[in-house]
Amino acid sequence: MHEAQRQRTCALLQARQIGAALFASPASITWLTGFAPPVQTGANPFAGAPPLVWWDGDRFTLIVVDGLASLSAPFADEADGDVVSYLGYTLATPLNGAQHLRTLLQSLWADTARARRVKRLGVESWALPAAASGILAASPLGGCTWVTIDGWLAPLRMVKTAEEIIKLRENFRLTDIAHAAARQAARAGAREIDVWLAAKAAVETAAGSRVPMGNDCVVGYRTENIGGWPLDHVLRPGDSLIVDLSTIQHGYWSDSCATYVAGEASPRQQAIHAVVSEALAVGAGLLRPGAVAGEIDRRVRGIITGAGYPVYPHHTGHSVGVTGHEAPRIVPDSQEILTAGMVILLEPGVYFARETGVRLEDAFLITEEGAVQLTTHDKSLAPVA
Amino acid sequence: MHEAQRQRTCALLQARQIGAALFASPASITWLTGFAPPVQTGANPFAGAPPLVWWDGDRFTLIVVDGLASLSAPFADEADGDVVSYLGYTLATPLNGAQHLRTLLQSLWADTARARRVKRLGVESWALPAAASGILAASPLGGCTWVTIDGWLAPLRMVKTAEEIIKLRENFRLTDIAHAAARQAARAGAREIDVWLAAKAAVETAAGSRVPMGNDCVVGYRTENIGGWPLDHVLRPGDSLIVDLSTIQHGYWSDSCATYVAGEASPRQQAIHAVVSEALAVGAGLLRPGAVAGEIDRRVRGIITGAGYPVYPHHTGHSVGVTGHEAPRIVPDSQEILTAGMVILLEPGVYFARETGVRLEDAFLITEEGAVQLTTHDKSLAPVA
Repeated sequence: MHEAQRQRTCALLQARQIGAALFASPASITWLTGFAPPVQTGANPFAGAPPLVWWDGDRFTLIVVDGLASLSAPFADEADGDVVSYLGYTLATPLNGAQHLRTLLQSLWADTARARRVKRLGVESWALPAAASGILAASPLGGCTWVTIDGWLAPLRMVKTAEEIIKLRENFRLTDIAHAAARQAARAGAREIDVWLAAKAAVETAAGSRVPMGNDCVVGYRTENIGGWPLDHVLRPGDSLIVDLSTIQHGYWSDSCATYVAGEASPRQQAIHAVVSEALAVGAGLLRPGAVAGEIDRRVRGIITGAGYPVYPHHTGHSVGVTGHEAPRIVPDSQEILTAGMVILLEPGVYFARETGVRLEDAFLITEEGAVQLTTHDKSLAPVA
Repeated sequence: MHEAQRQRTCALLQARQIGAALFASPASITWLTGFAPPVQTGANPFAGAPPLVWWDGDRFTLIVVDGLASLSAPFADEADGDVVSYLGYTLATPLNGAQHLRTLLQSLWADTARARRVKRLGVESWALPAAASGILAASPLGGCTWVTIDGWLAPLRMVKTAEEIIKLRENFRLTDIAHAAARQAARAGAREIDVWLAAKAAVETAAGSRVPMGNDCVVGYRTENIGGWPLDHVLRPGDSLIVDLSTIQHGYWSDSCATYVAGEASPRQQAIHAVVSEALAVGAGLLRPGAVAGEIDRRVRGIITGAGYPVYPHHTGHSVGVTGHEAPRIVPDSQEILTAGMVILLEPGVYFARETGVRLEDAFLITEEGAVQLTTHDKSLAPVA
């Protein structure tokens, strides 16, 4: 898995004269290896630190606590990678994942120092634990020049591989399923959390497993905040409900939004919805290789303001991958140029605090022939039959 | 919130001549401040780093990205604490949470250095990002003696405050609700994920909000692993299902386990269940101030082996709080002595790989008068009517 990602990374690091590198951010770990530890209840309680990836100038080594090692098995089969694990949970001795990790890291870095001469060492300094950094500094590699490589992989992640497109499509399929369930559940008397649960149940029933789900489920009279997780606010007849959903399967995110109305939409809601729909359609029509992100942002915002509505205070769009919000962003000053293989979300909206809000979002894969829509959910305001 | 926790921490740090300290582990952050950021979809994507807590020898300062600052408002009202936040999400400028955090930390540490003389500085080195450590080293405080304080708060966390007991009780109430729903759903033809969803829906419907939920939902023919998240394995008539549930509300965990059978339990399942029930009851009877953890472990295991069954390969019990598995652990070699205010889970089990498994778990609050059971879920094998 993810050999193309590692090839891109090798090329970048070698071009910048990096001889070895230590990755620590969850996004880098998943992108480099395909390994995606569960997130729903936080970190593994027996791990000394989050998973790390060591690149010795040639091979990638994923370093995980033993309890997660089986989940990383697919990566271990690769020609350019290994998985090493350390003791986490213990019964007969006190828990000490950090000490077991320390021993493993010392051994790994001594091996690298014996095998090759490293002059410049790259580290993801904002994700790497200070203790691991200290162990590295005390190792035979510690004396070489340290280079912070935080964020270096983000540009490499912008163009998705065929393997990533498959993972993303699986997630967009799940959010389509979630939206169909949310539309049915968004009736007067239901609470935000009830609609959310209907969507969540549809996703996990279809997936046959647990699936983390984000983002927003907010009734119109609460849209001062535009977003937010579902609470026990009740939908009254005529209330709008913004349902913005991501699923995370295989470490990859989807994203999509629709707005539902409990019963009949008012003429005002219909008028707002028509303008947001038009803004989304205009944006979608601009998505092609060579398009400039900032220009798409300007054109989509222009539809909203041209209709006399307040412009949304957030981005027009963004990409997704191993995170839910990544480059290229579709924001006012971006000079980023779209290329084939990027996945772009567009999500214009109109919000009137404590009254109603409408946001619509679709995902698109940029190809040489234009944009291919990845989301297929119904975004109409038509009431549930 | 959590003033008692901060008082205990001050006392410990001062007793060990620590003049200032930087906390970074999620457990420490929640325990010190009551602040519990959502975990279900991973870290805040716009944060430079996870939340930190700086103790300047007098006051505690919670350092969070702006998007999380509103969630930490209750702590900000305290006499001994503050919340400072830095810019995360941006629209008009590129995202750069790490740089905004850097500026904030530099300012904070310069202020401390101006106000007081620190000789010994404590840091949670396995959770602190290396970059934050580097900024601290370059600050006016960098020259003092650094002391790693990883794990120092764990012993302080063992005795729960009245405020924590309330939070824990709320979680045990939710897992009781979850078990009632799981019992109803555990019928032939249902999959593990279906039972899980029934429990999850019951919890979130009752809470009126999203609630992270762990731990295991495994059908008998899968109990080689003893634990595991629900998948699409189908319950056949007579299959047992281990349902081990935690909820996380207010940053605090519950934990509890029952074993259900799809239809009528076999005589063998009933016999196993009776022994596991007895082991749990014997363990519960030993819980009182002054009891030694290792001795409880020995006695509970003895019931299982005395009945001729293989002894479970895991701990007999543990505590919960801001994590799902914490001290005191009820394990063979522990000399830990129970005291009033501890919350203890006991969870003996018997497992036959690829056939059936039974585990039962209750939670207890140790008081001067003995153990008070916090879980009230039905742990019988009786089939659903």
